[in-house]
Amino acid sequence: MGKREIPYKTYLAENEMPKEWYNVRADMKTDHRSLLNPVTQQPAKAEELEAVFSRECAAQELNDSDAYIEIPDAVRNFYKMYRPSPLVRAYCLEKYLDTPAKIYYKFEGNNTSGSHKLNSAIAQAYYAKEQGLKGLTTETGAGQWGTALAMACGYFGLDLTVYMVRCSYEQKPQRKTLMRTYGAHVIASPSDTTEVGRRILENPANRSGSLGTAISEAVEVAMKSGGERRYSLGSVLNQVVLHQSVIGIESRRAMEKLDEYPDIVIGCAGGGSNLGGLMSEFMRDKLRGNANPYFIAVEPMSCPSLTKGVFAYDYCDTGKVTPLAMMYTLGSSFMPATSHAGGLRYHGMSPIISQLYHDGYLDEARAVNQTDVFDAAVKFARVEGILPAPESAHAIKVAIDEALKCKQSGEEKTILFGLTGTGYFDLYAYEKSLDGTLSDAPPAQDAIEASESKLPKMDF
Amino acid sequence: MGKREIPYKTYLAENEMPKEWYNVRADMKTDHRSLLNPVTQQPAKAEELEAVFSRECAAQELNDSDAYIEIPDAVRNFYKMYRPSPLVRAYCLEKYLDTPAKIYYKFEGNNTSGSHKLNSAIAQAYYAKEQGLKGLTTETGAGQWGTALAMACGYFGLDLTVYMVRCSYEQKPQRKTLMRTYGAHVIASPSDTTEVGRRILENPANRSGSLGTAISEAVEVAMKSGGERRYSLGSVLNQVVLHQSVIGIESRRAMEKLDEYPDIVIGCAGGGSNLGGLMSEFMRDKLRGNANPYFIAVEPMSCPSLTKGVFAYDYCDTGKVTPLAMMYTLGSSFMPATSHAGGLRYHGMSPIISQLYHDGYLDEARAVNQTDVFDAAVKFARVEGILPAPESAHAIKVAIDEALKCKQSGEEKTILFGLTGTGYFDLYAYEKSLDGTLSDAPPAQDAIEASESKLPKMDF
Repeated sequence: MGKREIPYKTYLAENEMPKEWYNVRADMKTDHRSLLNPVTQQPAKAEELEAVFSRECAAQELNDSDAYIEIPDAVRNFYKMYRPSPLVRAYCLEKYLDTPAKIYYKFEGNNTSGSHKLNSAIAQAYYAKEQGLKGLTTETGAGQWGTALAMACGYFGLDLTVYMVRCSYEQKPQRKTLMRTYGAHVIASPSDTTEVGRRILENPANRSGSLGTAISEAVEVAMKSGGERRYSLGSVLNQVVLHQSVIGIESRRAMEKLDEYPDIVIGCAGGGSNLGGLMSEFMRDKLRGNANPYFIAVEPMSCPSLTKGVFAYDYCDTGKVTPLAMMYTLGSSFMPATSHAGGLRYHGMSPIISQLYHDGYLDEARAVNQTDVFDAAVKFARVEGILPAPESAHAIKVAIDEALKCKQSGEEKTILFGLTGTGYFDLYAYEKSLDGTLSDAPPAQDAIEASESKLPKMDF
Repeated sequence: MGKREIPYKTYLAENEMPKEWYNVRADMKTDHRSLLNPVTQQPAKAEELEAVFSRECAAQELNDSDAYIEIPDAVRNFYKMYRPSPLVRAYCLEKYLDTPAKIYYKFEGNNTSGSHKLNSAIAQAYYAKEQGLKGLTTETGAGQWGTALAMACGYFGLDLTVYMVRCSYEQKPQRKTLMRTYGAHVIASPSDTTEVGRRILENPANRSGSLGTAISEAVEVAMKSGGERRYSLGSVLNQVVLHQSVIGIESRRAMEKLDEYPDIVIGCAGGGSNLGGLMSEFMRDKLRGNANPYFIAVEPMSCPSLTKGVFAYDYCDTGKVTPLAMMYTLGSSFMPATSHAGGLRYHGMSPIISQLYHDGYLDEARAVNQTDVFDAAVKFARVEGILPAPESAHAIKVAIDEALKCKQSGEEKTILFGLTGTGYFDLYAYEKSLDGTLSDAPPAQDAIEASESKLPKMDF
């Protein structure tokens, strides 16, 4: 343990918690490409975005100049109920792997939503409340985002309608109940409550739903609410990466207290909310030339937007009602094979992360197999005590791989990964893993090729 | 918020965590009545207890002289993975209730077992490992204890067989998977793997099982293991109250840092593990005449051992294979009506708590209705963010009642309650509560009268 005694868990004191979010766009070298209006295909203006998002969220979506944006008091007070999250030194995992590497993880699962999603949910709910809106609409896949937004809307007394991907709705009835406990109205998607849902349901093969479809339905309901409601998204967007920066700021401060700094930063990446948040001020250091951590994004083989997608403008949803974003994408019509990491089954990737990857600041993307991920998850649970969410276990898998490389090379690297959440609602998948009946999803290649050809043709 | 700014959450630093457990028996005024050998009905000697429990646990079971007992390093290191648990100031609940009372809770749910049970599980597993035993057996009702012991045995590489009450086994398959993830072998009880199980199964009405039956099976397997295994129990026993004292010691130290002391201490009580732990050093203060906190034990109407039971010697299990304990009991053949707080469905009460209640140091026991408990749970979840276990929600219900009394009287009392765990595996019950189909269990009176007459006749 070296000279100093590093504790198992490091918590910041309440008065050391961040008062501002970090907006990485202010430091990015490449001009960030705007969202496009889906009708005009011209850069979306604030007033157009305000039809979809709350006013302040629309402003944050467009803000590429302020490096720091104040966290409102009401949001900070809510953060105090479940944050700061612990920075954990994985002593037991290190011992189990017999590695000279020092492994840290930032654990975001110690709240009832079970993940980091609450960090942005409470901000988006707050701005909606401030604006005098009646409520929000959203979609959810694995259910973590829907739960988080249900908690946030419950707290501020806002209505919430959640379109939940039908296969999750049927597989995880507890998730639905949890959202209901916080007062949310939960609808299985595709549904007959929206035009886009009815259209998609015309093909019975679409019945099990997808995140892209659920987004289309939630956006439609918000847009047709006569201005009373707005739509809220838990990933991909700039505003989400902004709110999630609280993870990276806390991590960096806690490591500073320990006189540590990561050589490698590892996060799972679906839409990018967790990785974007975890990187935040570490990426700032890199962009400003003050440090050079090596960043790894981990994605599932079955939905590999960074490793197999193209960097292009695409819709954020299947129904093509959302603005278009410049991002790594598998095509908005891409239907990922069923996997147990629902939170990573999204065809696109945060435009911020996409640009950073394209420009080489996000050093590497690595796609991993589901069976390997669950093996890593079970190992981790047994030695570190925490049952990880399947999404988070993608990062665990690569952290273990990197730590074992250190064992080979003898290097004493400092590894930081994001443990985004817990797997209490994924035990049916753990059961399969234990029984040896979990299989890897089929390779995504064919579907990618098919959907790439359908990317919108842009004329710049 | 008064002169000082009291944070939402107070964590002790790792080096402030307790190095010793507190053994309340050393300060108790009344001689603690021994466990009796079920065959001879004479006070059980160490060597007799060692046939059931590990050697050190047997010694702790009998120890009524040492006020403090050292926590082994290996156990303290494991504690560091999930402890210290936060002492939370319930600002949002206070505001919601508009009460002048200051409400604190000690939250023990931030670990994968989902409850405080891990505090004793890891100690019992450690002593078994130290003795060179091959493994442990146990029972579980709601599943929290079984999960905790599975985690602890997985950590130390011990075998574990868990007899899980069949109605829980069928209602909560996820709990079973969680225990399996940590390597435990889980059997629905009553089963045909034991003599007592087969005997009890002769009456088909017993098929859904009970905690008392599952204990009988687990003890039988341990006793017939040729000395390779011992039995482990998550509540009732003196050793468990000892290990759980970590809750109260941490609470007291954290409050001390805030310059606070509770006027009222509230805990739910099934077998007594949580309440016994939460009271610990606060009870020491009372027994030594240094302070006079008011203690309230909260139990379900459907299984009210303190409020409706008798103080007598009784078996700890239905099959009458365990030692007899002097305790408040509803009779070992008492079958509580089905309720959703499985962890409180036990016919007896910790002998320590029973004696303290009998002697008036535990001031009050209060039985509450299931529907009121779930109403309190949903309220709490919405304002404080945490989804409580149904067991814990018993304490919440009474904490709210006491805070509302303060609102009436204008008193600014300081209330501390134990939030023992989370309700992720109890969402089927929340669903009923939200749908308005949850009902109160029938009154226990008749069953109590019937079983009282069957209490063992003791001759002292």
